[in-house]
Amino acid sequence: MSTSLLSNIQYPSDLKKLSPEQLPKLAQELRDFVIDIVATKEGHLGASLGVIELTIALHYVFDTPNDLLVWDVGHQAYPHKILTGRKEIFHTNRQLNGISGFPKRSESNYDTFGVGHSSTSISAILGMAIASKLKGDIKKQHIAVIGDASIASGMAFEGLNHAGVTDTNILVILNDNAIGIDPSVGALKEYLTKAMVGVKPKTNNIIEALNFNYFGPIDGHDLPSLLDTLEKLKTTKGPKLLHIITTKGKGLKQAEENQVKYHAPGKFDATTGDLISKDNAGLPPKFQDVFGYTILELARANQNIVGITPAMPTGSSLKYMMEEIPDRAFDVGIAEQHAVTLAAGMATQKLIPFCTIYSTFLQRAYDQVIHDVALQDLPVIFCIDRAGIVGADGATHHGIFDIAYLNCIPNMIVAAPKDEIELRNLLYTASIGLHHPIAIRYPRGRGYIKDWQQPFQEIEIGKGTTLNEGTEIAIISTGTIAHNITNAINSIEENIGHYHFGFIKPLDVSFLEKILQKYNTIITVEDGVVRGGFGSTIIDFANQHNFKNKIITLGVPDQFVHHGTVEELHDICGISSDKIQKTILKNL
Amino acid sequence: MSTSLLSNIQYPSDLKKLSPEQLPKLAQELRDFVIDIVATKEGHLGASLGVIELTIALHYVFDTPNDLLVWDVGHQAYPHKILTGRKEIFHTNRQLNGISGFPKRSESNYDTFGVGHSSTSISAILGMAIASKLKGDIKKQHIAVIGDASIASGMAFEGLNHAGVTDTNILVILNDNAIGIDPSVGALKEYLTKAMVGVKPKTNNIIEALNFNYFGPIDGHDLPSLLDTLEKLKTTKGPKLLHIITTKGKGLKQAEENQVKYHAPGKFDATTGDLISKDNAGLPPKFQDVFGYTILELARANQNIVGITPAMPTGSSLKYMMEEIPDRAFDVGIAEQHAVTLAAGMATQKLIPFCTIYSTFLQRAYDQVIHDVALQDLPVIFCIDRAGIVGADGATHHGIFDIAYLNCIPNMIVAAPKDEIELRNLLYTASIGLHHPIAIRYPRGRGYIKDWQQPFQEIEIGKGTTLNEGTEIAIISTGTIAHNITNAINSIEENIGHYHFGFIKPLDVSFLEKILQKYNTIITVEDGVVRGGFGSTIIDFANQHNFKNKIITLGVPDQFVHHGTVEELHDICGISSDKIQKTILKNL
Repeated sequence: MSTSLLSNIQYPSDLKKLSPEQLPKLAQELRDFVIDIVATKEGHLGASLGVIELTIALHYVFDTPNDLLVWDVGHQAYPHKILTGRKEIFHTNRQLNGISGFPKRSESNYDTFGVGHSSTSISAILGMAIASKLKGDIKKQHIAVIGDASIASGMAFEGLNHAGVTDTNILVILNDNAIGIDPSVGALKEYLTKAMVGVKPKTNNIIEALNFNYFGPIDGHDLPSLLDTLEKLKTTKGPKLLHIITTKGKGLKQAEENQVKYHAPGKFDATTGDLISKDNAGLPPKFQDVFGYTILELARANQNIVGITPAMPTGSSLKYMMEEIPDRAFDVGIAEQHAVTLAAGMATQKLIPFCTIYSTFLQRAYDQVIHDVALQDLPVIFCIDRAGIVGADGATHHGIFDIAYLNCIPNMIVAAPKDEIELRNLLYTASIGLHHPIAIRYPRGRGYIKDWQQPFQEIEIGKGTTLNEGTEIAIISTGTIAHNITNAINSIEENIGHYHFGFIKPLDVSFLEKILQKYNTIITVEDGVVRGGFGSTIIDFANQHNFKNKIITLGVPDQFVHHGTVEELHDICGISSDKIQKTILKNL
Repeated sequence: MSTSLLSNIQYPSDLKKLSPEQLPKLAQELRDFVIDIVATKEGHLGASLGVIELTIALHYVFDTPNDLLVWDVGHQAYPHKILTGRKEIFHTNRQLNGISGFPKRSESNYDTFGVGHSSTSISAILGMAIASKLKGDIKKQHIAVIGDASIASGMAFEGLNHAGVTDTNILVILNDNAIGIDPSVGALKEYLTKAMVGVKPKTNNIIEALNFNYFGPIDGHDLPSLLDTLEKLKTTKGPKLLHIITTKGKGLKQAEENQVKYHAPGKFDATTGDLISKDNAGLPPKFQDVFGYTILELARANQNIVGITPAMPTGSSLKYMMEEIPDRAFDVGIAEQHAVTLAAGMATQKLIPFCTIYSTFLQRAYDQVIHDVALQDLPVIFCIDRAGIVGADGATHHGIFDIAYLNCIPNMIVAAPKDEIELRNLLYTASIGLHHPIAIRYPRGRGYIKDWQQPFQEIEIGKGTTLNEGTEIAIISTGTIAHNITNAINSIEENIGHYHFGFIKPLDVSFLEKILQKYNTIITVEDGVVRGGFGSTIIDFANQHNFKNKIITLGVPDQFVHHGTVEELHDICGISSDKIQKTILKNL
């Protein structure tokens, strides 16, 4: 009886054959399809469930891909991918050689702009709209869909501020569900919260103040209302914003009720929504939790310690401190620039700010790190999570540039501990009286040591460590990639030296000299770009001091790395245990 | 008769001895003092003249430096410096070993936060205010002074958005003169323009929408009004914004009438305001003009060419194109992030975007360069002005990190032409069909070639050039610093090789191999940080290909460089002609 509508849809042209009355049924099918596949293949769930109706309405009303559509961040683009030619391969989502978890230009001409980081959509769509205007293409539509957390980021404001004085034909759809990955924060969010379906903010309309024509708010799950409104907006000239109210996780009860957990829930039962709980008991901790629990422990004892996260309380595990000591732990929203300079301001007043930001997002605050922190030599403690290859999130999210972009900044201490205990002790060391800024990088995922909550020990800044004294070849590594090297050399008969540099800057030069004197061949290994990275620093030192060793540098080569498991991608980059071993054997 | 009030003032404590009625006279004296010194010593004029009354009022009403005051950007802080202990040394402004042209923490405890780049003040003052709150210091006042151009930058919005949900005791003073360095742009500016003294924007009050208590607008040159309002605000709790309307260049007729020119006018007659015109006829062009005239010439012939500047139409010389082809030349305001992603959006639609940004400000858009441009391999053309040491603007403005931070990004072409003709031909080459993004760096100031407007010639991407074939030592340089090397080797008897690498990436490896084979000793020279820079790339190549040459890398060492003339600072860094020569002679 209930014929599947979705089975006949490959592209929006198929979608357009349906009557408006059939669309709610299609929405249900599409929702089920997303749930079924994400339940077993994992990925971002809640955001996509929240835009099922919007996605259908957009492709139904507009002439994509001729009309241009940009999804901000893009983790809500699963229904978009399914309706634009990728239904049959959607099960390969986020896997090596499968489709990306984010819109990607090389994947489909319906993906007009690659996304991953937040708040780029307004600038991108404006660039496209200006191009259309210059070409005299006055019929083309330009649509950006952006969430309420993302629109509060500075970059989005810059885009709105420019768009408001153009007469381009752009439509910004504000998908307001009051949550990003964690609940949205900030004054704009409080302001938006006052808007309800049908109740337009009459005074203080911040959107109208920026010269946008404001429409809404409407219910973003009400297809007739969406269709009507979008049809009307097609013929409305100039910059306009449609405010829709949606529910993240819509249609899966548990996802609606636990929106943070179901942002990217891992495997779950598609029928009940129950998470398929992994038995984590007895596993080593996540590095983010080493940070989260340790800062809480330190902050209990030192009231000058504060924590800052730009919109990642859960992902960074700052949430533990936010729950227990809310006065001193701050979620500032998607505002990396502000987060860093806020920390600098705090440091001038002798607070001890721990500013935790994912490596790839710290790129957003590069100028603030240089200009507000390092130039003033303020002892801000950067806790750089998700450093190195991150796996399934892919090219937009790998934290592979930080060593290179921090290494060249004067005054910065750049550290990469090899395991949980070293991370913990570094956090402690940084908290007890540094006179310079420090960046401590650590990866996504779990460590290696169950019993990691050992008594604190101060670490000597700039000191390297011998992990294995050898005779043949020396491996010099920084960070947790040391683990792969330990595995690699364990099964090699020859005695391979392994030295860990927990500090990329300052470099332990006397230690390095001894290694360069003892071994002819050196292999450096890092989970980051080789170009300008740790290995490059070792080569510079060797050159400067007239060492003539053979030095081989392993790390991420000079090309973008896409998605897959961390292990697969490490292998591609030549820094898996197996590949490291091969490199050693080849050079013995 | 008219006793000098200023002569008795060293610190705000002296200022407080005056009666309110004496302050307008002091304002006149202070204005004259600024004019007299800047007339002969040069520096930023207009912005400081615009805040004479505000500066007096702030130090009169508030208890600085206990109350904390941050000046956004800081080029308006001359009167602040003069009233806070630096009157006698103000004539050393911007000179080597003199005071900085910007507030600087190491210079005075009245300079609570070092500035230079725009829009940091709200984040910084909020950090300080949160610190006071945590310490229970409820009486301390926290004041940020920010201009209307700076508040429109995304970072300022992020600060406001966070501050609005804190109950910290902060006062943001919006110094609204409708101009940054060039006239302000954007929707927010149009919105602010509707406000007039005494006429508060009642509806759509964007500031109140962000939970700030809004006061004003008041006349920022009216001392009694300023004093009254500031006194009242001292006892007003929570986040508040005072909107003042001022005139940039106030009190010097010509500066009021030509605000762009008198932002930093060079030497002028203190009485008449007349500029002391330098005879520029017959001088080689400024590099910015090589860009500005060339893009205009190219854009006339190719309607796909567009130009983008974040708030620097005059400084970048994009203004020539803006005047003649306004539809295709965009000043987007102080919005580097937006500028870059806008360019990326345009490039997806086959426009040819030239995005001109100063090197130091491109740091603001680092993530966008990686994530929106390079990852998608979009052929955006970055014209990186003010690359290298910039001189008197000092540590906040030197463009010394760009080679290091761009070098590690896949897909990027990184170029540094040696002179005007090469710059011109590179701009041409980039415009006729690149398939990758390119960054072209060039310095502040004038070049070397009067007759630079030669017919266009395509440049082979990644190709190096022999400037002098030698026998003894090879100098390998990139960019306009080649000029210093030419000077250095001219007076050396031995035959020194000199090779110019116009491309740092891709590197001309076959050319480099030949050089490494021919010479034992190599000296690399670049106007940028050595760490992770061009020289480092040369060493990496030599290491990788088993060359054992002695390689000496000259460039900016791993420390911040302060202000002085370009020549003085090059000398300090070891890359003046003289120092390069010394290094050559030492290694012969």
